Amino acid sequence: MFLSQIFAKTSKESSSEVSSVNADLLERGGFIHKTMAGVYSYLPLGVRVLHRIENILREEMDKIGTEVFLPALAPVENWRKTGRFDTVNVLFQAIPANPFSARHNDAQYVLGSTHEEIITPLVQHFCSSYQDFPCAAYQIQTKFRNEPRPKSGVLRGREFRMKDLYSFHTSEEDMLEYFFHKAIPAYQAFFSRIGLGEITDIVLASGGDFSKEYSREFQTRCPTGEDHIFQIPGTDTRYNREVAPSKAKRWENASEKELPRQDVSGKGIIGVDELAKYLKIEVERTTKTLLFETENGKVVAAAVRGDYDVNEAKLRAVLGCKALALAPAAVVKEVTGAEVGYAGPIGLPENVRVVWDESTAGRRNFECGANKTGEHSVNVNFGRDIPEPKEFFDIKVAREGDADPKTEKEYTVYRGSEVGNVFTLYTKFSDSFGFKFMDKDGKEKPVYMGCYGIGTTRVLGVLAEVFHDEHGVLWPENVAPARVHIIPLAKKESDAPYKEALSLYKKLQKQGVDCLFEDRINRSVGSRMADADLIGVPTRVVVSEKTLADKGLEVKDRRTGEIQMLSVAAFLKRFA
Amino acid sequence: MFLSQIFAKTSKESSSEVSSVNADLLERGGFIHKTMAGVYSYLPLGVRVLHRIENILREEMDKIGTEVFLPALAPVENWRKTGRFDTVNVLFQAIPANPFSARHNDAQYVLGSTHEEIITPLVQHFCSSYQDFPCAAYQIQTKFRNEPRPKSGVLRGREFRMKDLYSFHTSEEDMLEYFFHKAIPAYQAFFSRIGLGEITDIVLASGGDFSKEYSREFQTRCPTGEDHIFQIPGTDTRYNREVAPSKAKRWENASEKELPRQDVSGKGIIGVDELAKYLKIEVERTTKTLLFETENGKVVAAAVRGDYDVNEAKLRAVLGCKALALAPAAVVKEVTGAEVGYAGPIGLPENVRVVWDESTAGRRNFECGANKTGEHSVNVNFGRDIPEPKEFFDIKVAREGDADPKTEKEYTVYRGSEVGNVFTLYTKFSDSFGFKFMDKDGKEKPVYMGCYGIGTTRVLGVLAEVFHDEHGVLWPENVAPARVHIIPLAKKESDAPYKEALSLYKKLQKQGVDCLFEDRINRSVGSRMADADLIGVPTRVVVSEKTLADKGLEVKDRRTGEIQMLSVAAFLKRFA
Repeated sequence: MFLSQIFAKTSKESSSEVSSVNADLLERGGFIHKTMAGVYSYLPLGVRVLHRIENILREEMDKIGTEVFLPALAPVENWRKTGRFDTVNVLFQAIPANPFSARHNDAQYVLGSTHEEIITPLVQHFCSSYQDFPCAAYQIQTKFRNEPRPKSGVLRGREFRMKDLYSFHTSEEDMLEYFFHKAIPAYQAFFSRIGLGEITDIVLASGGDFSKEYSREFQTRCPTGEDHIFQIPGTDTRYNREVAPSKAKRWENASEKELPRQDVSGKGIIGVDELAKYLKIEVERTTKTLLFETENGKVVAAAVRGDYDVNEAKLRAVLGCKALALAPAAVVKEVTGAEVGYAGPIGLPENVRVVWDESTAGRRNFECGANKTGEHSVNVNFGRDIPEPKEFFDIKVAREGDADPKTEKEYTVYRGSEVGNVFTLYTKFSDSFGFKFMDKDGKEKPVYMGCYGIGTTRVLGVLAEVFHDEHGVLWPENVAPARVHIIPLAKKESDAPYKEALSLYKKLQKQGVDCLFEDRINRSVGSRMADADLIGVPTRVVVSEKTLADKGLEVKDRRTGEIQMLSVAAFLKRFA
Repeated sequence: MFLSQIFAKTSKESSSEVSSVNADLLERGGFIHKTMAGVYSYLPLGVRVLHRIENILREEMDKIGTEVFLPALAPVENWRKTGRFDTVNVLFQAIPANPFSARHNDAQYVLGSTHEEIITPLVQHFCSSYQDFPCAAYQIQTKFRNEPRPKSGVLRGREFRMKDLYSFHTSEEDMLEYFFHKAIPAYQAFFSRIGLGEITDIVLASGGDFSKEYSREFQTRCPTGEDHIFQIPGTDTRYNREVAPSKAKRWENASEKELPRQDVSGKGIIGVDELAKYLKIEVERTTKTLLFETENGKVVAAAVRGDYDVNEAKLRAVLGCKALALAPAAVVKEVTGAEVGYAGPIGLPENVRVVWDESTAGRRNFECGANKTGEHSVNVNFGRDIPEPKEFFDIKVAREGDADPKTEKEYTVYRGSEVGNVFTLYTKFSDSFGFKFMDKDGKEKPVYMGCYGIGTTRVLGVLAEVFHDEHGVLWPENVAPARVHIIPLAKKESDAPYKEALSLYKKLQKQGVDCLFEDRINRSVGSRMADADLIGVPTRVVVSEKTLADKGLEVKDRRTGEIQMLSVAAFLKRFA
């Protein structure tokens, strides 16, 4: 590819709006262009990387499934059947844009954010006997999600490319067999081939809208990753923070004498750190008490040590309820008699259950809200001021320093960027569509499903986040926009370096080695060299009068910076 | 590919809803599945054909442009800038599907039906000097169009795949040079490679929403095609009926004596054929007079011979107006004094211009509406009843039998199915975005553009429409879902024919020859053979005890039906 033929250009300066490493590097390198918030155009070099990623992925998926291409427009009724039309908070719909269009056809469609609602009835149409199973189908396609704040470049867009695979089984065992022994190994093979294998871990995560079980995420270790991974040291067990069971580092002061409880004023103080400072106590002595309402309108209180936050998913599991939301101010007022911010466990109505996090155990003379606007109680003690809780639970968001409750080992915590996820769906979606099969024994039984996603544009973004230096991206060989970037230092096309460079380009292309050729000879040497660094092709070759007087080519490894002089023949051998 | 691994199955019966050849063949062959009206899922075999089409297209487009991938979601403001948000009658928009989603982000987006509104400002962002031109970018992507009655399978869907190419130039000459000498030859190369070259013609057609000039359509000759092509015999000039200039076959009766004009009753008679029968006159003696309103509310009458229809585009050109619509009933009543259906040229108000089609010239004693409800005038004559028109125009829809007005040669008429189109856009879109460039002379000048489309899913449908027999599709070699379809006749996998067939499959795959392998040995021989015909892979190979006792393989050419016995070695040589 001749660089003069790419209309898109690199840019020395970061755009003023850029807020993520991947967007900055990919925009400056001429890989992507922001069309609007969360929506990107892929430029010629970006398309090349994206195709390479998707072709490798296709090869790995073909080993465990068959490719289909499902529509982005889905019937609303399918989404009503699964109950997700009204609940998925990133869902778009497509409707006519103007009255002329509406007169044509005023139907309303779902714009696919995921494809269970299409693939389940599709496979149901064709498969009804146990002999038709197992089967698996995947696609690589554009997805639409109405993300609230798409700020992380191509990592989380309103429109993005995704590979989604769905598998169908006659039993839980077969589903799990496929999940662990086909899908996960295929994912690992893919991540290895694109250079992420050694830095990508399998992590237990939430099942989200899809499943009550843990899902598995593939998390690439990355200092700028948005997820926090909690690993039990010496094991392969890793949790996404959202589901990590946690045991707080004990803060105990059992030796302290119980002091008289006092209600003190602390109006307008925001945050536990400020409160601790104001009260001149340790932050671990403070208590956060939050009131929640369940789907039945029941009010519960959740109490965690001040240096923790409440994890709603964990709290839901303790309560055995489906939905949970922070109680509105009016309810807080009614239940506690105080404005929001001063709730505490003392003197709550009897029907309000208090769930205590284990981080609150073992403390004496602790602080909590006084259930009076502007007031806090200090020197509170279990047994004396509040009944000693019968049981302590884990309802907090895990923090660095916490331990795994079972092994009691302190977690190793690091950041990760999600590059894929896999879900066991059991019969959730087949139940919605009444998708059953006739088994050998003549009985109808429900179909088990799994679903498996990899966002290919997201993978492109993560590659830029993990592989770069201060000059630009460092693409792994298999996904680079080209394998060699050739720069002739010449004033005109008839000069020897240009002719030699072009001859090398043709030889390499003939050998099947994709190259970029820097034919914009009117640009300065410096800007052409800077472009090569920004674009990040693994090998840069400079041909100049000087190199021709020497062995012929100056070959630079973009990653190590190592420079070698090589003859054309020796260089071509590398790709033989 | 093993057929047992494809969950999608063929079907002997046509679906009851099927209304087009392509949908019938492609659904029965297991290539596509209708998700809903105008929206299809592509099944494993369909995806293979689609990929082959798109990869060949990509190779040809890479020779004249560079690949990009633009978002489906577009900013509404861009579509307002070009004035198309309110006027394109197939436009969809994307908005949140539920209140949770709306709370996230309630923005409204256009869902792309075409991409001038994205590519123009994108190229504008990067290109501002004459040195940056010409440039061209294409993408292969899903498009969304709210078609009123999507009845022709994958030929016209609400969601479909399309290759769209856009070119940018510093002058009209350069635009035309690219249009005729790059884009059109690249299209021809593509159609040749997929087997449509010899039956695909370049046809002059309307510029539609894009241009006032003729566009060029690539029309594949096809008896079921929805377009009518008018060719001037012995030349390469072909028109789509919508724009074909036409001269009617004269119907003259100048030797007749003028008879006294009469108003006769003919209430409730619908259509000119019925009217002619009722009046006992030739249909050519009747006249259709239609009243139209222009964008300024001016009323005009258009009169064509009874056996023709009015072509609004031609009438617009004669009148020099932008928009035209049939006058509402109330206006017709006011102007003619009669209900709709009885308008005629005699005695219309002076400010109502009558435009006469040339088909009406040379007639005596003709019929027309009497401008009285239920009445027709017969034996009407120019000069006596109505002033002889000063000029006759061509405002009719061309019909078989018509001649080209210039050469006076009678058109050859045949049906075609559109597979591509190319437009010269001039500065229409660059003007909307203020896209100018700095020329060598230091002056700012407008950028010229062209756009060029090929619907890849549509091409897939046209291939099925033109290449099939009563048993199924006959795929051209380059786009077939596989090159060889292997069927072992065996009861179990350990039988010799199965083992031999599998060995052949592996050898072919190793040689890079894509095969389908019929491993569903529990199915009847007849149904497996019928499937091979339905799927339409060019070469079928049967391996049985009988063929093994002979030379080894029974090789059938799907297109000719010719059967040969060949040894494995001889067969493999075909693909060497």
